[in-house]
Amino acid sequence: MSLDLTFLGTGSAYPSPHRGASALVLRSEGECWLFDCGEGTQTQLMRSPLKASRITKIFISHLHGDHLFGLPGLLCTVSLNSSPTQPPSCVDIYGPQGLRRFLRVSLELSASQLLFPFAVHELEPTADQCPPEGLLNPLVTQSSEWLHPQERPGTTIQMDTQSDLYVLFEEKQFTVKAFRLYHRIPSFGFCVQEQERPGRLNAQLLNELGLKPGPQYGLLKAGQAVTLANGRIVRPCDVLDPPVPGRKVCIFGDCASLVGEGGIKACQGADVLVHEATLADEHRERALEHGHSTPSTAAGVALACKTHRLVLYHFSQRYKPLGLQKEGDEDDVLELKRQAEDALRGTDIEVIVSEDFLTLPIPIKKLQ
Amino acid sequence: MSLDLTFLGTGSAYPSPHRGASALVLRSEGECWLFDCGEGTQTQLMRSPLKASRITKIFISHLHGDHLFGLPGLLCTVSLNSSPTQPPSCVDIYGPQGLRRFLRVSLELSASQLLFPFAVHELEPTADQCPPEGLLNPLVTQSSEWLHPQERPGTTIQMDTQSDLYVLFEEKQFTVKAFRLYHRIPSFGFCVQEQERPGRLNAQLLNELGLKPGPQYGLLKAGQAVTLANGRIVRPCDVLDPPVPGRKVCIFGDCASLVGEGGIKACQGADVLVHEATLADEHRERALEHGHSTPSTAAGVALACKTHRLVLYHFSQRYKPLGLQKEGDEDDVLELKRQAEDALRGTDIEVIVSEDFLTLPIPIKKLQ
Ligand SMILES: [Zn+2]
Ligand SMILES: [Zn+2]
Ligand SMILES: [Zn+2]
Ligand SMILES: [Zn+2]
Repeated sequence: MSLDLTFLGTGSAYPSPHRGASALVLRSEGECWLFDCGEGTQTQLMRSPLKASRITKIFISHLHGDHLFGLPGLLCTVSLNSSPTQPPSCVDIYGPQGLRRFLRVSLELSASQLLFPFAVHELEPTADQCPPEGLLNPLVTQSSEWLHPQERPGTTIQMDTQSDLYVLFEEKQFTVKAFRLYHRIPSFGFCVQEQERPGRLNAQLLNELGLKPGPQYGLLKAGQAVTLANGRIVRPCDVLDPPVPGRKVCIFGDCASLVGEGGIKACQGADVLVHEATLADEHRERALEHGHSTPSTAAGVALACKTHRLVLYHFSQRYKPLGLQKEGDEDDVLELKRQAEDALRGTDIEVIVSEDFLTLPIPIKKLQ
Repeated sequence: MSLDLTFLGTGSAYPSPHRGASALVLRSEGECWLFDCGEGTQTQLMRSPLKASRITKIFISHLHGDHLFGLPGLLCTVSLNSSPTQPPSCVDIYGPQGLRRFLRVSLELSASQLLFPFAVHELEPTADQCPPEGLLNPLVTQSSEWLHPQERPGTTIQMDTQSDLYVLFEEKQFTVKAFRLYHRIPSFGFCVQEQERPGRLNAQLLNELGLKPGPQYGLLKAGQAVTLANGRIVRPCDVLDPPVPGRKVCIFGDCASLVGEGGIKACQGADVLVHEATLADEHRERALEHGHSTPSTAAGVALACKTHRLVLYHFSQRYKPLGLQKEGDEDDVLELKRQAEDALRGTDIEVIVSEDFLTLPIPIKKLQ
C-alpha cells in the first residue's frame, strides 16, 4: 500500500511566497490526511499534485494562526470543488479545545455552507503544556450548544493517564494517537501507526503439511485455524511467515519539549519523525523563549525514539529555500541539517530538510 | 498628492495560484488602506511593492470568506513585522455587523497578541440587502462584552436615512462613506472622496490689490480675510482661483445590484469605479442567483454614476489572467471587457480589466 508525506508549507509564524505556513499531507492510496492548515494551504494544495477533495481527516496540532487560519477557507474550497452528487463523506477534524468554536464562528459569520458533513473532535490539554498565560479561559473555548448546519457532534478526547496518550481512533489500516508537547499554548504531536499485516503463507510449510491451494488458504490468511482431512488442526501461526510490522509516521506540532512519557513511547522506531526546527542551535535561547526547537532538540527526540528518518520543518522565514539562497547568506537551511546530523553522529538516523512540495515516500517494511 | 490603487487579488470565491482572493489597496502618500482581505492577502502583499506595515485602515465589504479569511493572519503579520519601538498607531477596521466577533474569536483562540491597538467599527445592514436566509441571527453577531487586549472600543454605524449612506469618517484629506449593496449576505460599497483643495493665489488679482508677498498670503490661503493698509477688506474668494475638486474612488463589494439611492448619488463623477464582474453576460442568470454581476451590470452602474473609469474585478477563477490564457480558451477575460465596452459604447468611460498586482495611478484633477 502506497504511503507518502507531502509538505505544503514549511515556514513558521506566517506564510511567505517562499515558504507556506504549516501544512502537510499524509497520503495513503489516494486518501489524504492533512496535518495543520496555515493560511494559504488551499492555494499550496492547488500548486501540488494532491487533490483537496481527497482530504478525509484533518489534524490541527495547536491553535496558533500559522497552523489554523487556512482551515475555514480550505473547507469552503473543498466543498466548492466537490461533486454535488458525490460529496466527501464526513470530514473528521481533530485538534485542541477551542477548535470547534473557531470553526463554528468562522463558518457561521461567513455564511459558509458545505456540501459535506464535518465533526470536530477536541483534545483536552493538560495545564502543564504551556506557561499559565497560554491556557485559554474556559469561557473562550466553550462553544454554544448549536451545531453548524453541516456539523455532526464530535467527541471530547481526554488523555489516557495510563499511557499518557490520546487515542484518536483505531481503523482497519491505521491507529492514530496524540501526545502532549510544551509550547506557548497547548500543542500536540500525532503518531500514525499502520496496522501490522499478516505474514505470507509459507509455501514450504504448507507443502510439508500437504495443504493444497484452495479455500483453506484464505481461512488461514484470515487468521482462522483449519482441520485437515487427517484430523490435524493447522493454526495460522503454523504456516504463516511472521507478520509484517506496520509503518509509523510521527508528526510533531510546535514545541520546545515533550510533556510526559507518551510521545517518546508512542514514537519508538518511527519510520519518519517530523519535527520542527524553527531556529539554528546558536539561537537556542530565543527559540526556547518562543516555545520552539532547534536542530539539536529535534535530534535528541529522534535519538530517544530510535527513528529511521528525521525530517525538519517549520523554519523561520529567515531561512530561504535552497534554490533561493544567495552565496554568503547568513541563515542557511543546510546549516540546520548539519547541526542535526552532528547531534546524530554515530547513529544511522537520516536527516532530511523539508521544502514546500517535497514528497517523501514511506516504503513498506520488509521482513528481517 | 500621489494616489493609486493596487489590486492584490482579483479572483472570486477562493484564492488560486493565478488570482488571489479579493483585496485591493488605496495608497496615498505611502499610507495604505486595504479594501477586503481574502485568504492569502498577506502573501500577495509580500509579492507586491506595498508594505503591510503601512496599512492604517481596513474596509471589509461583506463577511464572505473570500473577502475576510485573510484578516486575522494579516493583522498578526503586520504586528510581527512592525518595529516594537514604532508600531502602527491604531488600525481602524470597518465592516458589516459580525466582523467584531469574527476577529475577537479568531485572535483570542489563536492567542494572537498585536503590537498595536485596533478598533472595529460595524455597519448595521438593513434587511433588504439580501434574501432573508442571508441575514445573520442577532445572537451570532453579538460579541460578548470583553475586548481583545489590543482592541479599542469601536463604533456602530447606522445608515443616515436622509442620504441613504453610512458616514464612516471625515478627515483632513478624505471623507469615506459606505452604501448598501444587494448580495447573498449584506454587502457594502465604499466611496472615498478627497477633500477639495483651495485654489491657488491669483498673482494678477493680488497685484491689482497691491498685496505683496508676506504673512497675509498665508492667511488668505488658510481661508481668512485680511485688512489692507487702506482699510479695505480682502476675502480669500477675491484673490484665490476656484478650488480644485478632490478625486473620488468608489469600490463596490460583491453585488447583484444596489439598494436604495445612496450608491449612485455618492459615486457621481467618480474618477475610478471598481465593480465586480464575476461572470460574463451570457451567464447572467447564474450570476444573479449567486448575488453577482456581469459586465453589463457593472457598465450600467458606471453609466448611472458618470464615472471616468470602470475597473472590473472579482472574476470567476475560470477566467485565467491574460498571460495564462491559452488559444481557444472558452472563458476569456477580454470578453468581459468587450461586454462592458459594448454596453458603454458612445460614452467616454474607459473600461479596465484588473489583474493581480495591477497598480492604477489616479492623477490629480486639473482645473477646467
Ligand atoms: Zn508555528
Ligand atoms: Zn506555534
Ligand atoms: Zn466574493
Ligand atoms: Zn460574496
